[in-house]
Amino acid sequence: MLVKSQIKLIRSLQQKKYRNQHGLFFVEGKKTVNELLDSDYTPHSVFSTDPKVFDVPNDILTEVTLTDLKQMSTLKNPNGVLGIFHIPEKEQVEFKDWIVVLDDIRDPGNLGTIIRLCDWFGIHDLVCSQNTVDCYNPKVLQATMGSISRVNISYRNLPDFLKDSKIPIYGAFMDGVSVYQNKLPEKGIIILGNEGNGISSEVETMVSEKVSIPQYGNSTTESLNVATATAILLNEIRRA
Amino acid sequence: MLVKSQIKLIRSLQQKKYRNQHGLFFVEGKKTVNELLDSDYTPHSVFSTDPKVFDVPNDILTEVTLTDLKQMSTLKNPNGVLGIFHIPEKEQVEFKDWIVVLDDIRDPGNLGTIIRLCDWFGIHDLVCSQNTVDCYNPKVLQATMGSISRVNISYRNLPDFLKDSKIPIYGAFMDGVSVYQNKLPEKGIIILGNEGNGISSEVETMVSEKVSIPQYGNSTTESLNVATATAILLNEIRRA
Repeated sequence: MLVKSQIKLIRSLQQKKYRNQHGLFFVEGKKTVNELLDSDYTPHSVFSTDPKVFDVPNDILTEVTLTDLKQMSTLKNPNGVLGIFHIPEKEQVEFKDWIVVLDDIRDPGNLGTIIRLCDWFGIHDLVCSQNTVDCYNPKVLQATMGSISRVNISYRNLPDFLKDSKIPIYGAFMDGVSVYQNKLPEKGIIILGNEGNGISSEVETMVSEKVSIPQYGNSTTESLNVATATAILLNEIRRA
Repeated sequence: MLVKSQIKLIRSLQQKKYRNQHGLFFVEGKKTVNELLDSDYTPHSVFSTDPKVFDVPNDILTEVTLTDLKQMSTLKNPNGVLGIFHIPEKEQVEFKDWIVVLDDIRDPGNLGTIIRLCDWFGIHDLVCSQNTVDCYNPKVLQATMGSISRVNISYRNLPDFLKDSKIPIYGAFMDGVSVYQNKLPEKGIIILGNEGNGISSEVETMVSEKVSIPQYGNSTTESLNVATATAILLNEIRRA
């Protein structure tokens, strides 16, 4: 049976402050909950309208009604299951493959899509500036489709992180050299900037290679969306 | 001064039925309104809290308050201007370059992003199945960032459209041949399918080349989002 304190806990986890305080976050949907149960993430509790389908110890599994779920969910139409998980310890970032770095990405859908892209292209490490939207934000998790369990995401002061890099630092700029022009190395860092302002000037000074995605036709489109730009750049990195 | 009949008209244009009935659609935001004013689109009327900044004849320009705008807008925070435009006549599709074909794309954000990508990569013709979300839907227009004026978008019965094609028909499939493997031709059709179900079986029979975007690492991600897949495929087409 669901008790008031559980509803209160889950609702509080919609806010970053309480996620950090409790060391917990939640996801919704059978596919995502199952992907996290199958991963290294530790489940705290699972609430389901059909608990038989989840292979978790009884003491963390609670059968709930759809009305209960509506009280906890961030979705208009909750889809039958909500799982709370412990926020994992981050692994150290190793400079042995390409690393994606995000400088103040604010849109949860963009961050979620970028996490999913890192997973698709086998990028293990995603490093975000401290002002980038929190990866355990429910809207981010909705867009990752469960791939968050397979990408190591850290929040760092970017200048401090970048100054220790011994691999080349690429940044995506409108006025960079065409990414088709030079062969990309086997490992490196690729930085993508904020939706409106691009890469900040402090981070820009640490970039060794500015790259851009060529534009065709007579377009006056000012830029690509940051998630689609990430898709194209990761494709270029992996096909190289 | 704004009159009730104008508010009623604009609110009705949120629905496809009334857009088609009136032959009108609306966009919001200074940048998008200006891009459409600078294009071949014919303005019907412009409502602005700061009308001096728009170079349009006085008889179609109305100064409004923010409270007026809130009554017309689909946005929580309307951004100062709303423009109504005539839905243009479609140009005929010519088979002289790559053409993007969408088979039942339902998410307005995905269609908007794909229109913006077509503009970026100089793709003139976008052909949508009749069940694809309407390109004059306010949420689609919000995501196109004004690029709708530079892409010729048609809604067609896809089997009828495809049977006349004299250029190769490519389709994006999970089990296609790697898009890196063979050089892409100078012109062709690339089909992307519905978010959940992919390309329909009727359309699939008309595809001459099935292509896929290779996946890296140990990911169990099932698929890429259709807009990010479009980004990667258009990049492959143009870099070829």
